[in-house]
Amino acid sequence: MSVFESPHRRYNPLLDEWVLVSPHRNNRPWQGAVEAVAGEELPVYESDCPLCPGNERANGELNADYQHTFVFTNDFGAIKPGPVPSTVEFSHPLARFEPVDGVCRVVCFSPDHSKTLADMAIDDITRVVYTWRQHYLELSNDYPCIHIFENKGTAMGCSQPHPHGQIWAHQHRSSEIEKENACQAAYFSEKASCLLDDYLQMELADGSRTVAENNHWIVVVPYWAKWPFETLLLTKSGLTDMGQLDEQQVEALAAILSELTIRYDNLFRCRFPYSMGWHNAPGDMEDKSHWRLHAHFYPPLLRSATVKKFMVGYEMLAESQRDLTPERAAHLLREVSGVHYSKEAQ
Amino acid sequence: MSVFESPHRRYNPLLDEWVLVSPHRNNRPWQGAVEAVAGEELPVYESDCPLCPGNERANGELNADYQHTFVFTNDFGAIKPGPVPSTVEFSHPLARFEPVDGVCRVVCFSPDHSKTLADMAIDDITRVVYTWRQHYLELSNDYPCIHIFENKGTAMGCSQPHPHGQIWAHQHRSSEIEKENACQAAYFSEKASCLLDDYLQMELADGSRTVAENNHWIVVVPYWAKWPFETLLLTKSGLTDMGQLDEQQVEALAAILSELTIRYDNLFRCRFPYSMGWHNAPGDMEDKSHWRLHAHFYPPLLRSATVKKFMVGYEMLAESQRDLTPERAAHLLREVSGVHYSKEAQ
Ligand SMILES: O=P(O)(O)O[C@H]1O[C@H](CO)[C@@H](O)[C@H](O)[C@H]1O
Ligand SMILES: O=P(O)(O)O[C@H]1O[C@H](CO)[C@@H](O)[C@H](O)[C@H]1O
Repeated sequence: MSVFESPHRRYNPLLDEWVLVSPHRNNRPWQGAVEAVAGEELPVYESDCPLCPGNERANGELNADYQHTFVFTNDFGAIKPGPVPSTVEFSHPLARFEPVDGVCRVVCFSPDHSKTLADMAIDDITRVVYTWRQHYLELSNDYPCIHIFENKGTAMGCSQPHPHGQIWAHQHRSSEIEKENACQAAYFSEKASCLLDDYLQMELADGSRTVAENNHWIVVVPYWAKWPFETLLLTKSGLTDMGQLDEQQVEALAAILSELTIRYDNLFRCRFPYSMGWHNAPGDMEDKSHWRLHAHFYPPLLRSATVKKFMVGYEMLAESQRDLTPERAAHLLREVSGVHYSKEAQ
Repeated sequence: MSVFESPHRRYNPLLDEWVLVSPHRNNRPWQGAVEAVAGEELPVYESDCPLCPGNERANGELNADYQHTFVFTNDFGAIKPGPVPSTVEFSHPLARFEPVDGVCRVVCFSPDHSKTLADMAIDDITRVVYTWRQHYLELSNDYPCIHIFENKGTAMGCSQPHPHGQIWAHQHRSSEIEKENACQAAYFSEKASCLLDDYLQMELADGSRTVAENNHWIVVVPYWAKWPFETLLLTKSGLTDMGQLDEQQVEALAAILSELTIRYDNLFRCRFPYSMGWHNAPGDMEDKSHWRLHAHFYPPLLRSATVKKFMVGYEMLAESQRDLTPERAAHLLREVSGVHYSKEAQ
């Protein structure tokens, strides 16, 4: 029996924390919550949708009659331009507080209300990547910390089915970026090599966690994945941020995003929900050699289109726990077809 | 306008991370997921329930015909007794792995299938606390890290409505315990006082975040709460773990657990879902003077019995974000009745 078949822990070197792996546990009976299946057909245009071309938004503005992508400032953004942050030692040393300065934008991926990245043409995904790059470059003049992300599906708190992502940019470094930066910097100063480059080499040599790969990118279920079908999308070209993407890297990225999201949808034959996002090197560092551009995909489904993994009591209060090995998850994602189930010959 | 009314960040000194607070954001329109209302009446006994007295469980064992509390080893535990953990430097330095040794138990709070802590008599909650203490003491002979927790409600991944919690005990320190320990130890060595004692004094002096209080315990919405109605239950008696509870502390704890869970249920007039759990000082430390026993309550609801807060894209990839201030949440919890809505005069 492989050591991986008994309960064990694995170490996440990007966040300096552990994950509990319980490979035998996926067989327990489930009488808990079931999600709605996200398989329904949506119309190409929805007159109520605040993201469809030409429609009016909550603040009275009209969307452009856009053909490809469309970006606007979030009418209900969690962050707004404000005073530049400086930690104020508040009324008490245990009541530390700082103001926040930033912006929230919404990025519509397509004028077609019914699409997701998984059924968009690669050319159209290319346009999404160029849009990300453009806004990354523009915002990086003002903000060192730029989060580009997507919540897909109601299971991931998405309140609008129209295909879209978000960009939140701000002066301060967010907590996750601080942690990943500290871990990558410590590794670099200890080993004189880059953590994610070394990890890339490990995965290229191994192969058991690889889901998709091309000349510029690789997708793996990371050794330390917490979500059942979590993946990590890594640059093979030593990039530190999205501003550096060249034309070939953009095209290869669109191709691998297409492949990954198709494999996800095919796994349980549904519009596979996830939250995904990019981790760029913070813009306010002279030396970025310890950092590599990467994206995390955190999908919640565990066993089927309707049964998700709950990260609750133990996970919130102790540490993340998973019910199948990362190697098994990668195997399942490799095994499904690379052609979207909706396009199969009937 | 108070500084708290604009977007800001607050520092969590127990985990060394920040939380983004966006007080204006709770007004945005919501077209996303709605939860089932957890208000339905349940029967006192359910023949299918693996937790009801006398019933057969999946492994063929029969539950005792219990009167108060009942504890058994989880038939589908994520952790099982196994080799004592020792970090194995695996095939690669970025593939760190360790075996896990521990146990998972289920703690039934009451034979009555229809109850929750919020509608149990204080005497019966006292018996739950004594049961926790007994198992804590027994397990601490073998395991230094003991997690006592409860997932309540399908929204929190609870697969059985029968009132129950869990105990997972193991050799290794979990990631959250390691982080809280490092933060409390660093504070103690810097200030020569205990972080949570100083925080207790701050909250006693302030009052704006207090939800409930008695001679031995206080419940506050912590200054750095991430979940909308998150609370922190703190010892006033300098306890480090559940093994130290004396009779008066047990009774006072039962009373404040009753008050808190009643206030939670009254907020949106439903069986208020949450995950809660205790953080005991790790058992393998000589000196525990930097640590104080406390419990965290993480409830997901945000606006009503059916609309919860999603900790998704930004929260998973950047940092936790909340849509109302902790002071406002505490105010709302103080404002509701201390008598459970099901017991109001009709
Ligand atoms: O053990 P249960 O109640 O069946 O399962 C629940 O709690 C566990 C501990 O927090 C989680 O790992 C599971 O995802 C959740 O569904
Ligand atoms: O901005 P949206 O899509 O309305 O909202 C969603 O994503 C945000 C950013 O991850 C979260 O803060 C919200 O809880 C979630 O519902």
